[in-house]
Amino acid sequence: MKLLIVGGVAGGASAAARARRLSETAEIVVFERGPDISFANCGLPYYLGGKIEHRESLVLMTPGHFRERFALDVRMRSEVIAIDRSAHRVRVREHATGKEYDETYDKLILSPGASPLRPPIPGIDLPGIFTLRDLGDVDRIHMRMGGGVRRAVIVGAGFIGLELAENFVRRGMETTVVELQDQVMPPFDKEMTTPIVAEAKARGVQVLLNRSAKAFEATGNAISVRLDDESSIETDLVILGVGVRPENALAVAAGLEVGPRGGIRVDDRMRTSDPDIFAVGDAVETTDFVLDTPTQVPLGGPANRQGRIAADNAMGRDSVYRGTQATAVLGLFDLTAAMTGASEKSLRRIGKPFERVYVHPTNHAGYYPGAERIHMKLLFEPGTGRILGAQGVGKAGVDKRIDVIAMAIQAGMTVFDLEESELCYAPQFGSAKDAVNMAGFVAAGKLRGDQPQIEIDTVMSLPESERPLILDVRTAGEVAHGAIPGAIHIPVDELRERLGELPKERSIACYCQIGQRGYLATRILLQRGFEAANIDGGYETFRHFFPAES
Amino acid sequence: MKLLIVGGVAGGASAAARARRLSETAEIVVFERGPDISFANCGLPYYLGGKIEHRESLVLMTPGHFRERFALDVRMRSEVIAIDRSAHRVRVREHATGKEYDETYDKLILSPGASPLRPPIPGIDLPGIFTLRDLGDVDRIHMRMGGGVRRAVIVGAGFIGLELAENFVRRGMETTVVELQDQVMPPFDKEMTTPIVAEAKARGVQVLLNRSAKAFEATGNAISVRLDDESSIETDLVILGVGVRPENALAVAAGLEVGPRGGIRVDDRMRTSDPDIFAVGDAVETTDFVLDTPTQVPLGGPANRQGRIAADNAMGRDSVYRGTQATAVLGLFDLTAAMTGASEKSLRRIGKPFERVYVHPTNHAGYYPGAERIHMKLLFEPGTGRILGAQGVGKAGVDKRIDVIAMAIQAGMTVFDLEESELCYAPQFGSAKDAVNMAGFVAAGKLRGDQPQIEIDTVMSLPESERPLILDVRTAGEVAHGAIPGAIHIPVDELRERLGELPKERSIACYCQIGQRGYLATRILLQRGFEAANIDGGYETFRHFFPAES
Repeated sequence: MKLLIVGGVAGGASAAARARRLSETAEIVVFERGPDISFANCGLPYYLGGKIEHRESLVLMTPGHFRERFALDVRMRSEVIAIDRSAHRVRVREHATGKEYDETYDKLILSPGASPLRPPIPGIDLPGIFTLRDLGDVDRIHMRMGGGVRRAVIVGAGFIGLELAENFVRRGMETTVVELQDQVMPPFDKEMTTPIVAEAKARGVQVLLNRSAKAFEATGNAISVRLDDESSIETDLVILGVGVRPENALAVAAGLEVGPRGGIRVDDRMRTSDPDIFAVGDAVETTDFVLDTPTQVPLGGPANRQGRIAADNAMGRDSVYRGTQATAVLGLFDLTAAMTGASEKSLRRIGKPFERVYVHPTNHAGYYPGAERIHMKLLFEPGTGRILGAQGVGKAGVDKRIDVIAMAIQAGMTVFDLEESELCYAPQFGSAKDAVNMAGFVAAGKLRGDQPQIEIDTVMSLPESERPLILDVRTAGEVAHGAIPGAIHIPVDELRERLGELPKERSIACYCQIGQRGYLATRILLQRGFEAANIDGGYETFRHFFPAES
Repeated sequence: MKLLIVGGVAGGASAAARARRLSETAEIVVFERGPDISFANCGLPYYLGGKIEHRESLVLMTPGHFRERFALDVRMRSEVIAIDRSAHRVRVREHATGKEYDETYDKLILSPGASPLRPPIPGIDLPGIFTLRDLGDVDRIHMRMGGGVRRAVIVGAGFIGLELAENFVRRGMETTVVELQDQVMPPFDKEMTTPIVAEAKARGVQVLLNRSAKAFEATGNAISVRLDDESSIETDLVILGVGVRPENALAVAAGLEVGPRGGIRVDDRMRTSDPDIFAVGDAVETTDFVLDTPTQVPLGGPANRQGRIAADNAMGRDSVYRGTQATAVLGLFDLTAAMTGASEKSLRRIGKPFERVYVHPTNHAGYYPGAERIHMKLLFEPGTGRILGAQGVGKAGVDKRIDVIAMAIQAGMTVFDLEESELCYAPQFGSAKDAVNMAGFVAAGKLRGDQPQIEIDTVMSLPESERPLILDVRTAGEVAHGAIPGAIHIPVDELRERLGELPKERSIACYCQIGQRGYLATRILLQRGFEAANIDGGYETFRHFFPAES
C-alpha cells in the first residue's frame, strides 16, 4: 500500500499519523509545499499579540520529528502540481531546486487547505498589507510590527479579524476593524453580536460596519485606506481577514468534482469523485449536520476528524464522517462568543421552519461572587422541539453551554431534553437550574403553549398603532436604567392588585429584564382572561436588537 | 384545588412557584418549620470562608417576597407533624405559640429534606461541635469562629467536608479532615481522588484517611478529638460532615413506603405510595438513570427538577422524572473534581460489566499559555460502548467535559459518538481534538481492538514473575522524574530500530506519560509480531493508583 498525502498541516498530519498507526508497512509520503507541517494556525494571532511568547510554541511538530515518530517520508517545500488519475501518479515540484518528478500512489489524500482571499482592491499589493495563514505570514507581520508601527486596520470582522484586533490592542496599537456587512462575526445572528461590538469598542477598537476598503495608497511608510464613503484611515499595517477560498486548483485540474463555492466534493467517507482520492480540511465541501445541505467550514476540529476518517477509508477500514456542525468559539478580551449548529439566518436562507428563544441566565449561582450573564439564543424545530442551533455570548461559561448543546444536537435531542439535563452544580460552576435547563424551560414552555411569546423585533416592526400594549413588569429601579419605548409600568409583584389598570380588549406584551418575571406576569394575565404574551428574552434581548434605543 | 407543600427550600420552593404558574386560582400553602425558605444551601461553606461576604446573599427569597411574588400562603416556623391520609388532612404545629391545627388538602407535596447524621460518639453534644445544614447552623458556626478559633477538625471528607476545609484555610485556620474510608470524596473511584488529596495537602489541610473519631472531650474552651488509633487532635471547632439521612418521620408515620436507606419511595411522577401525596428532594429515593437501581442523591439540581415535576403532576399535568444521573462537582482551591453517572465501584457493586479508560488531555491547546491536564476516567458498556459514567479532576475545564458527557449519557450515546463530537475550539478554550474526543478515541480504540490495553492495577497486582515486560517509551528526561518499577526504557522514536532488544515470547506492556505514545508503540509492536498492550493512561494513571511509589 502506497499512500500519498498532499499537505501536512491539520487534516494531512492527522491522516498521516492515523495511517501509520493502522499500518507499519504502508509506504506513506507527505508532500508539503511550505516550510512547516502541523503548526498552530489558531495560535497565530496570539503570537502577534505576545500572549504566546515563543515562535517555537507554534510549531507542533518539526518535519524531522514527524518523520521519525511516524516513520513517514515527509517531503518539505515539495508541491504536488498535477494528478494523473488514470496512471495513479502525481507530479511533484521541489521548490528549492525546481526539479520535477513523478510519484505513484494506491491512494491519495488531499489536504491543501484554503487560502485567504485578496480582493482586487487598488493598492492591495503595497508593503504593509497582509493576510494571515501560516508562519511565513506571521513572520512578515511580526517584522513589520517590530518596526514601531502603532496603527492597524483590519479588513473583515470575522474570527481572525477580531482575534487580531484583540492582539493588536494588547500591543498598544490603535486598531480599526472595517466590515462590509452590517454586523461583526457573520456566522452569528446580528442581534447576538451587539455585546461583541460593545466589548470591542470598550477596549478601544474602532469598529466600522457597512464599510468596505475601496483603495490603499502609500503615504510614506504608512498606508492610507480609502473607504467606500470616501473617508480615509491612516495606518501602518493592514490585515485582510475577509474569508478564505478552498485551494482546489489541483483537484479541479484533475477533474475532481467541486461545489459551487469551490469546495472539493466528498462523500461521507471523505472520498472525492475519484474512488482512490480523498480530500479533507478547509478545501472540502461537506454536509451540514443540521441542515443537510452542502457546506464549507474551515475549522480545525473538523479538519482533524476528517483526516482520521480519510486515512481509515484509504487504508481499507470503513469510517463515516457525520457532517459538520460548525461549532465555533471566539475569545475577545473578556468576552466569549460561541455557536453550534444552524443560525437563524442559515435557517431562513433554506426556508426551514424554526422557533427561537432568548435567555440570559448567569454562568453560576447569582449568590456566589462573579456571576456573569450568558446571552443565549436557542433555535429549534416547531412541534418536535429538535434543537437546530445555539449561540451564546458572555464573560464566562459560554463555551461550556454551547458544547453541551452541541452534544445535544449531535444526539438529535430536543428542548424537552434540555429541561431534564443534569449538569454540574456547585455555586462557582453552575446553578441548580443551569443555563442549559433555563433555555430548555423557556423553549419547551413555548412549544407547550404555557408561555405564549412575542418577539421584540416583530413588536417593534409594527406601526405603533398596531402594537400590543407593552407592559414593563420590572422594578422602578430597573425601569430607570432604560425601558422599551411606549411601555407602561406595573411591577410583577403588584400586578394581581392592579389588573384593573389593564385593558381586556387589547393584547398585552409583558416584559421584564430577562423574561422570567414576564413569564409569571403572562401566566397571571392569561388566567385572568387577558390576551397576553411574554416578550422573548425581555429587556436584555431588546437591547441586543436595538442597541441605539437602549 | 388546594395544594399543601411541606418544606420551602429547594424542591418545595420550586414546586410552589411551578404550581402557581400553572394555576392562579389554586390555594397553595407552604409550611416551613424553619425560619427561612429558599436559601443557598450550597453557598454556606463559602459564607463561612468569607468568599460570600454578606449573609443576605444566602437568602434567595424572603418568605414575604415569596408570598407576594407567587400569591402563596407561606407559613413559617410551622411544622407538619402528622398526615391523616384518609381524611386528606395534616396536623400543623406553630413553633412560636405551640398551637396546633388541621389543614385539609387535595394534593400534598413533601419536601422535608435530609438531616445531617450525628453519630453516637461520646461527647458529640459538646459546644463547638456542629453539623451544617441551614442558616441557623451557619450562624452558630460563624459565632464560634468569631471567637478567635484557629483550629478546625472536619469529620468526613465528602463534598461539604472538603468545601469547608478550603474555606477554613481561607480564614487562616489550621484544618484537619478525618475520613473513615481509605479515600476522600466517596462517590469517586479511589484512584481519581489522588490529585484531590494532593491539592488539599499542598494547601495545608491535614488529611487523615482510615481514621474515625472515637470521642470528643472538652479541654477548657477547646475540644480534644480522640481518634480510633488513640491519637488525639486538639481543636476549637468540629464539623460533622458524614452524610445525611432523609427526613422521613412524617412519611413513615403516615404509612408511606420508604426504601431500605430511608428514602421516601416515589414513582417516575414523584408520586409516593399514596396517589395524592408527592415527595421530592433529599428525602426521596429515586431511580439511578444509568444503573436503573434505587438511589438517594441529595443534590440541588435534581431537587429543583423534582419539585417542578411533582407540581405538574399534582396539578393534573403529566410530567416524568427520568431518574438521577448524580452529576456532581467539587471545587477545592484551584482544583475541580466532577463526575456523572456510574462509578467503577457502583458498577462493581451491582455486578454490571464495564470497560474503563483513563486519559489525561489538557483543557486547551498546549501551545497556548496556561494549559492544564484534565485527568479523566470513562466507564462504558463492553460491546455497545454505551457510556456509563465519567470522572474528571484538574485545574480548569473539568466541569465542561463532565457536563458534555452528562449530556451524552442522558442521550444514551456511545464512546463512538464521543469520537465524532464537534466542540468549541480556539486555543484558549479547547483543542482541535478536545478532551472529550480523546476519551472517545481511546475507548473506541479499545472496543475495536486497535488498542489492546492493560490496566496498571492489574499489572501491579500480579506477582513480579507473572507480570508482562513493562516498556517505558518516554524520553529520558521524563523517566528521570519517575517510572514504573521494573520497567525497561526505549523511547518510542527509537523503537522501530531497537526491536531486537525485545522478547517475542513474553508479552509487553508499553507505557508513556498519558497513553498516546504508548498507543503508537503498541501498534508498532503488534504489527511486528510482538504480543503487546498499552498501559491504560500511562504513567499519570500509575501515579494516581500508586501515589506512594511515584
